[in-house]
Amino acid sequence: MAGQAQLKAGIIGASGYTGADLIRLAACHPGLEITHLTAGKNAGAALGEVFPHLGGLDLPDLSATGDIDWTETDVVFCGLPHGTSQEVIAALPNHLKIIDLSADFRLRDADVYAEWYGHEHKARHLQKKAVYGLTEFYREDITGADLVACPGCYPTAALLLLLPLVAQNLIEVDDIVIDAKSGASGGGRSVKQSMLFCEVAEGMHPYGIAHHRHAPEIEQELSLAAARSLIVSFTPHLIPMNRGELLTTYVRLGKGVSAHDLRQALIGRYKQEPFVRVAAEGQVPETRHVRGSNTCLLGVFEDRVPGRAILVSTLDNLVKGSSGQALQNFNLMFGFDETCGLTQHPLFP
Amino acid sequence: MAGQAQLKAGIIGASGYTGADLIRLAACHPGLEITHLTAGKNAGAALGEVFPHLGGLDLPDLSATGDIDWTETDVVFCGLPHGTSQEVIAALPNHLKIIDLSADFRLRDADVYAEWYGHEHKARHLQKKAVYGLTEFYREDITGADLVACPGCYPTAALLLLLPLVAQNLIEVDDIVIDAKSGASGGGRSVKQSMLFCEVAEGMHPYGIAHHRHAPEIEQELSLAAARSLIVSFTPHLIPMNRGELLTTYVRLGKGVSAHDLRQALIGRYKQEPFVRVAAEGQVPETRHVRGSNTCLLGVFEDRVPGRAILVSTLDNLVKGSSGQALQNFNLMFGFDETCGLTQHPLFP
Amino acid sequence: MAGQAQLKAGIIGASGYTGADLIRLAACHPGLEITHLTAGKNAGAALGEVFPHLGGLDLPDLSATGDIDWTETDVVFCGLPHGTSQEVIAALPNHLKIIDLSADFRLRDADVYAEWYGHEHKARHLQKKAVYGLTEFYREDITGADLVACPGCYPTAALLLLLPLVAQNLIEVDDIVIDAKSGASGGGRSVKQSMLFCEVAEGMHPYGIAHHRHAPEIEQELSLAAARSLIVSFTPHLIPMNRGELLTTYVRLGKGVSAHDLRQALIGRYKQEPFVRVAAEGQVPETRHVRGSNTCLLGVFEDRVPGRAILVSTLDNLVKGSSGQALQNFNLMFGFDETCGLTQHPLFP
Amino acid sequence: MAGQAQLKAGIIGASGYTGADLIRLAACHPGLEITHLTAGKNAGAALGEVFPHLGGLDLPDLSATGDIDWTETDVVFCGLPHGTSQEVIAALPNHLKIIDLSADFRLRDADVYAEWYGHEHKARHLQKKAVYGLTEFYREDITGADLVACPGCYPTAALLLLLPLVAQNLIEVDDIVIDAKSGASGGGRSVKQSMLFCEVAEGMHPYGIAHHRHAPEIEQELSLAAARSLIVSFTPHLIPMNRGELLTTYVRLGKGVSAHDLRQALIGRYKQEPFVRVAAEGQVPETRHVRGSNTCLLGVFEDRVPGRAILVSTLDNLVKGSSGQALQNFNLMFGFDETCGLTQHPLFP
Repeated sequence: MAGQAQLKAGIIGASGYTGADLIRLAACHPGLEITHLTAGKNAGAALGEVFPHLGGLDLPDLSATGDIDWTETDVVFCGLPHGTSQEVIAALPNHLKIIDLSADFRLRDADVYAEWYGHEHKARHLQKKAVYGLTEFYREDITGADLVACPGCYPTAALLLLLPLVAQNLIEVDDIVIDAKSGASGGGRSVKQSMLFCEVAEGMHPYGIAHHRHAPEIEQELSLAAARSLIVSFTPHLIPMNRGELLTTYVRLGKGVSAHDLRQALIGRYKQEPFVRVAAEGQVPETRHVRGSNTCLLGVFEDRVPGRAILVSTLDNLVKGSSGQALQNFNLMFGFDETCGLTQHPLFP
Repeated sequence: MAGQAQLKAGIIGASGYTGADLIRLAACHPGLEITHLTAGKNAGAALGEVFPHLGGLDLPDLSATGDIDWTETDVVFCGLPHGTSQEVIAALPNHLKIIDLSADFRLRDADVYAEWYGHEHKARHLQKKAVYGLTEFYREDITGADLVACPGCYPTAALLLLLPLVAQNLIEVDDIVIDAKSGASGGGRSVKQSMLFCEVAEGMHPYGIAHHRHAPEIEQELSLAAARSLIVSFTPHLIPMNRGELLTTYVRLGKGVSAHDLRQALIGRYKQEPFVRVAAEGQVPETRHVRGSNTCLLGVFEDRVPGRAILVSTLDNLVKGSSGQALQNFNLMFGFDETCGLTQHPLFP
Repeated sequence: MAGQAQLKAGIIGASGYTGADLIRLAACHPGLEITHLTAGKNAGAALGEVFPHLGGLDLPDLSATGDIDWTETDVVFCGLPHGTSQEVIAALPNHLKIIDLSADFRLRDADVYAEWYGHEHKARHLQKKAVYGLTEFYREDITGADLVACPGCYPTAALLLLLPLVAQNLIEVDDIVIDAKSGASGGGRSVKQSMLFCEVAEGMHPYGIAHHRHAPEIEQELSLAAARSLIVSFTPHLIPMNRGELLTTYVRLGKGVSAHDLRQALIGRYKQEPFVRVAAEGQVPETRHVRGSNTCLLGVFEDRVPGRAILVSTLDNLVKGSSGQALQNFNLMFGFDETCGLTQHPLFP
Repeated sequence: MAGQAQLKAGIIGASGYTGADLIRLAACHPGLEITHLTAGKNAGAALGEVFPHLGGLDLPDLSATGDIDWTETDVVFCGLPHGTSQEVIAALPNHLKIIDLSADFRLRDADVYAEWYGHEHKARHLQKKAVYGLTEFYREDITGADLVACPGCYPTAALLLLLPLVAQNLIEVDDIVIDAKSGASGGGRSVKQSMLFCEVAEGMHPYGIAHHRHAPEIEQELSLAAARSLIVSFTPHLIPMNRGELLTTYVRLGKGVSAHDLRQALIGRYKQEPFVRVAAEGQVPETRHVRGSNTCLLGVFEDRVPGRAILVSTLDNLVKGSSGQALQNFNLMFGFDETCGLTQHPLFP
């Protein structure tokens, strides 16, 4: 890398778990130099004070977003909470490429956004031009995009599994039940009683039943693939683990379609993809098979109920479900090999 | 209790997790004296060697089952692994009342048993007279029974939730999807690589997809309630916690039926029951709400998908899902108040 | 219990983990009726809203402490955070017996209090008359006390282990190293980033190195036993578990004293005690041996280093380390059998 | 890397946790090609069957060690259990460089080995020529070695901390107490009841008190540094986490030495080292700060007890404590940059 020009990248909202994982990955990327890190109440701190595990890295201190001169910067990753990204991003200079990890630009429809987020979108012009960053399905758009809205963690796992099956008409689109499970890092690093160790450990429960904001995002993309509006049953659960996400999806097969057909369709769709893999026949995907890596692992099982199949998809919510996919999109946008900086193998145990 | 005669009880297979929890509860029961504890390879050991947490109790050492003179014993709890109970129980003297915690006598149909367990039942005469020990639904039969087959942990959680709804025709019986989650104690204390700490902690996964033996048990009882044969989609998952079980069940509502109707039906059905409770409106049942107690907690939620509801049931797999329900049945069989020895409140955190 | 008069008890600060565990235990106590529960920001809520696991109990809603008429109340348990108890307790009517679970009245010396807590004590007259509630060592005083200051969790584990050895001159009092480990419930239910699930799970670390406030409490009591001032090395660690505390204590043996002598001294000292037990020879105490129970388990091991021994003590920080010991003191103060309401066996797994 | 010759490496005993982590790291090393993987009862299996998280890698199936032709191989990593390595390694052809991760060649003294392992060493000639692979202290010897005995995980953490302090005479060598804590992966992947999830989760305990085999290894190296025989108090504890190890070490300072001096000595000793770091002043090392990385993090704290200090060292037992250090030694032996393949940053949360 010596002597080679690197792209200069800023990370806005670097003090959350998503920010930490983006730094972990980006710091190993040969073509990217982290020149700015910003935070809210942590502005002014050294990175090692906020994330001691990154204290050994030679990286800038955290600044306030407003204090930064972006002139020399090429790209900004934005990891702010939902609702705050849109205004911050709207205020950034035009020359910057933006990779947003929040939910602010994922929904294309202004009304759907307002319904689920409780307020009008504050940057409609950007919402319109944002590209949905599900890499395996929007490559061409992402390559030329100025603003990429990286998908939510649950939608990534759901869509990588379901989009090929819906697009090829292999399942009944009106009978999709998604039972989702996630580790606690999906809840972020902000302090809430419900996320205390003692409230999460040695127990589990569903949350956001019938009103989780990832549902309309899943429906937006599946509806496009089905060429008609559809609605899914989606219920997430909080599991006592740090990272990892697994969706068990219950579907009714299309006429004449078998579970084997579904499996073959997925194998066919992803055989060239570096980060999506169909588990070996009979092998059950587990979250620990992908921990720390950018891989999404899929599985297809025949149900005992005639005409039904049980589908499994798993990924690391902080990597393929967030920062890893963001870096994958960065690679696309700037002409790197898509796997650059993303080749770490899963950490087990 | 002083001076009062107590029933003399033996526990066969006392060295597993189910045995430990039965001892924990039974040792506090005022009308029961544990006179025999048996084990396989642990025969000869003091209880405190096998379960140091019970080392302070004044209880008999573990013996080999064959060495015991049952003359003075009134009742036997049997916590042996599936497949081994039937022969051991068949060999016990006739005067003993038997409360079996294994799966051996749960299925009434000899063919269904053989299909799921891979061999003919070895005690057909007992299989026929065994009473299914789901206390809240078989009270009368249990009261007079000689052999009670306590339900599996998943079936208990599923049936307490679904039986009233099916019996009252409130849901479509051909569209029941049960996504079940359990802590690791459900896997027992026998050593398997898949149950090592490092294989379970910081991760989760489904198992026994489309072939878990609790499915036919659930179907047997629901079919009876529906007065016709039905089949359910049932998928269990292993969660990194010791105890606790939670089922998220996805159902299609009957014509004109609302989620509210389901909730009311459950409230009505269980309002006199000491151990089954419908969570307050809007409150989501969590496994930690029932940890260590004999309570089953139910919840009903309207789905966003029209005509569908999301149901939640949770219990402690070792208590209401096993040893607690066994003791509840003991109380019925011997004329104690049904809550006797079972009034511990949940342990949280 | 019907018809029998029960003592009326209030619990101030009922919305923390200590409060929850006190309610769990007290609700089963035959001689005690919980008539008041108070909380700060949760005042006005039903108990089941704050602690759904206790939602099935018939108990009063949470009130503001200032709103309560204490006329009919006999005893108050106070579970407020350190520093706030003293003023609240000073304002209570004189007829009330007080059992305080905070640190406010544990240190007898006004200067030591001021040094460690950073402010003058605001109720010196009460500090002087408070009785240190280490039940096994202050029985007589507790019996007649108006105000009992229950020991901290670490001091309870340390003192039950060390007091007999120091009092009998069996160890060198100037060479005591206590390496303490605790589950996360010791940190309380108030929200702090450092206690989020993801900050605690899958990791561990020491905290409060050389300045934890339980050190002077341990030293106060050991100094009394040694009849001279002494100082201990005390370092606590946060372990990724909900409850449980274990101290590994490294000591130098007195001249001519063996590890066996230590063991015998402890056995002798505690042979009549219902809640302190020396583990069987060779058996290593584990936190799970006492989870949920009021037992403190001790172990003594010879070190390879000549003249040294390794001591282990373990208890459940919320029970014997807090609410259980408080209830044990209540029993003493009001003439109940000391084990009343405290006979639950440990919950394992 | 294309076109560049890579060293051909075999991994004997690849089916344990150490093997898995070595594969994880080695598969990313640009100068190493894994050409053989061996296992005992898993011989014949594909790697993905034994370790599904590595199923996406293009690596050889597992073979029986005896079936392999080593002619083309340059180096062998040996991850067999203690006691079995020595014979397997003795039977390997002479041209192979050996990096052993077991305990078989760590102790130089034949009598000490026999005393602690209960049998005579079966390859004395190799024991004599083996180099102790604590990289930061034996670089020159490792560079030219044919057989490197990688240190145990506890000794690595203990020695990196203590060797500079002992060598510079800064602490009293007769008063060293090491309280060690480790995650469950240190127990290996072989099945034992004591390592089941339910036996480890939600609890903790010491083990191997006063007879853990890492003690003589620590003493061997400290005695060399002190130029006289010494003995340490060493007690390990099992913590409910997968990976990570932390030692809290209690020492008495040398005359006129302060805790600050210790800190400065460590900073000075390691300032050029890529993998050993002294935590920022006041920052407490935590296992999660190093999870998945090859870093050892050290901390020094003044005790309240005059003349004493509290030292902390933490590392990932599977990386710097095992496979990472093995790869670091490989780099030294074959002329790579010492950090090659070891630059992953810690995984948090």
